[in-house]
Amino acid sequence: MKVDVLTLFPEMFHGVFGTSILGKAQAKGIVSLNALNFREYAGNKHGQVDDMPYGGGGGMVLKPEPIFAAVEDLLNEAEQDAQSTAAAKSADETQPEASSAKQPRIILMCPQGETFTQKKAEELSKEEHLIFICGHYEGYDERIREHLVTDEISTGDYVLTGGELPAMVVIDSVVRLLPGVLGNETSAVTDSFSTGLLEYPHYTRPAEFRGHKVPDILLSGHHKNIDAWRREQSLLRTLTRRPDLLEQVELTKKEKVWLDQVKRHE
Amino acid sequence: MKVDVLTLFPEMFHGVFGTSILGKAQAKGIVSLNALNFREYAGNKHGQVDDMPYGGGGGMVLKPEPIFAAVEDLLNEAEQDAQSTAAAKSADETQPEASSAKQPRIILMCPQGETFTQKKAEELSKEEHLIFICGHYEGYDERIREHLVTDEISTGDYVLTGGELPAMVVIDSVVRLLPGVLGNETSAVTDSFSTGLLEYPHYTRPAEFRGHKVPDILLSGHHKNIDAWRREQSLLRTLTRRPDLLEQVELTKKEKVWLDQVKRHE
Repeated sequence: MKVDVLTLFPEMFHGVFGTSILGKAQAKGIVSLNALNFREYAGNKHGQVDDMPYGGGGGMVLKPEPIFAAVEDLLNEAEQDAQSTAAAKSADETQPEASSAKQPRIILMCPQGETFTQKKAEELSKEEHLIFICGHYEGYDERIREHLVTDEISTGDYVLTGGELPAMVVIDSVVRLLPGVLGNETSAVTDSFSTGLLEYPHYTRPAEFRGHKVPDILLSGHHKNIDAWRREQSLLRTLTRRPDLLEQVELTKKEKVWLDQVKRHE
Repeated sequence: MKVDVLTLFPEMFHGVFGTSILGKAQAKGIVSLNALNFREYAGNKHGQVDDMPYGGGGGMVLKPEPIFAAVEDLLNEAEQDAQSTAAAKSADETQPEASSAKQPRIILMCPQGETFTQKKAEELSKEEHLIFICGHYEGYDERIREHLVTDEISTGDYVLTGGELPAMVVIDSVVRLLPGVLGNETSAVTDSFSTGLLEYPHYTRPAEFRGHKVPDILLSGHHKNIDAWRREQSLLRTLTRRPDLLEQVELTKKEKVWLDQVKRHE
């Protein structure tokens, strides 16, 4: 997978792209991550990428030309890569073949976008090329939204100084789903939103820490009981903290009855 | 404000803490941002901070001791700073005075936490000291959750490789609210969630780009009409994309009637 990010602050990405899972995924050749300053496409000698809003009001608005130009440059590059790959392939197979490359997804990070979820991460992880556009303080000229992008994404209902951090969040959640990125030792954990329930409590050594003990059942060695306790704790935690998630989860009849009893006793 | 982050990957924060608004806020002395590796508090020669889960199952669990030790070290340091400030102050005023420092907020970044919103950002922006705890792949020993932290925060319903990116998101949203951080020229924009509605469309020059024109009304110079158009566009966009937000917004009677008409025609 190829990921390009258009931003006025490419240096924000260096520490994140080089570390941990994202760094390893690049080293393994599974993903290529690239942050590009779209000021290079300003097309004027002052490098101006924003301007005053029509109709007045505070703040600046990102102009359409630099962002269209930067995206189109990336698309042309991808097209040429695909053609040379196809040419090499057809030379190999002595059969001409059309380029089968998928169109890149062009993703605008903005508060008006669809709220990002694990389902969207799974959808994007099936793509070959993602292009992210990150504004910073400024609004976007509406023509970028209407005539250039394929997706608009928000990571939540809060105001940030730019789209850079949300883009990193989306990239991290997508790249960790690519085959070969997570080892078996890590893939099983923290997948709260994959099961649809919040996770049960975890405990590790010491068995007693400052007088606080690990629940006896986890030390019992009785795996069937442990599994039942964990499922119950997951259900309880989800009921208490995120009851909205319970509506989308498949529960057994017994679990439903039990949860109703718990609710009545609260 | 003082912000400490406990993480196994402090290098992820360097590019983000040094750039743009966060960099400027530090340069102005409004906030001090510090990422600390809690492996330094492992207390064993291999620097081990995680261990197998009691009760079996995949993945590793972060041990309580290193994280308790790291947080307590930060708390002691803050206490000493407060005492020396209070002592200096009382020497100045020739009146002894008790330390008035607020207790730090100790925030666990985790998928089970409360969903982060602009309201929570505003709440945290009134604090003097925030300590963030970021796990990475691993789960947290439940005793950290129960006996150490004051808040548990999730930035959304998606799975990430660690709490680092969500911590950056929370820090960015909080720091930009601190007095003196944003200039007037930037504070007005992209505040979708401050008004409760999604923003209206923005346009800037050129007035025509590849055949796509700026709406006439924005070129009319008639500010009353422009304001009305923008409010209408905000309402429409919110109705189409995030109808859930409309329930929490105060609308005029006229606006309610108009929105009902729009809904009936869809």
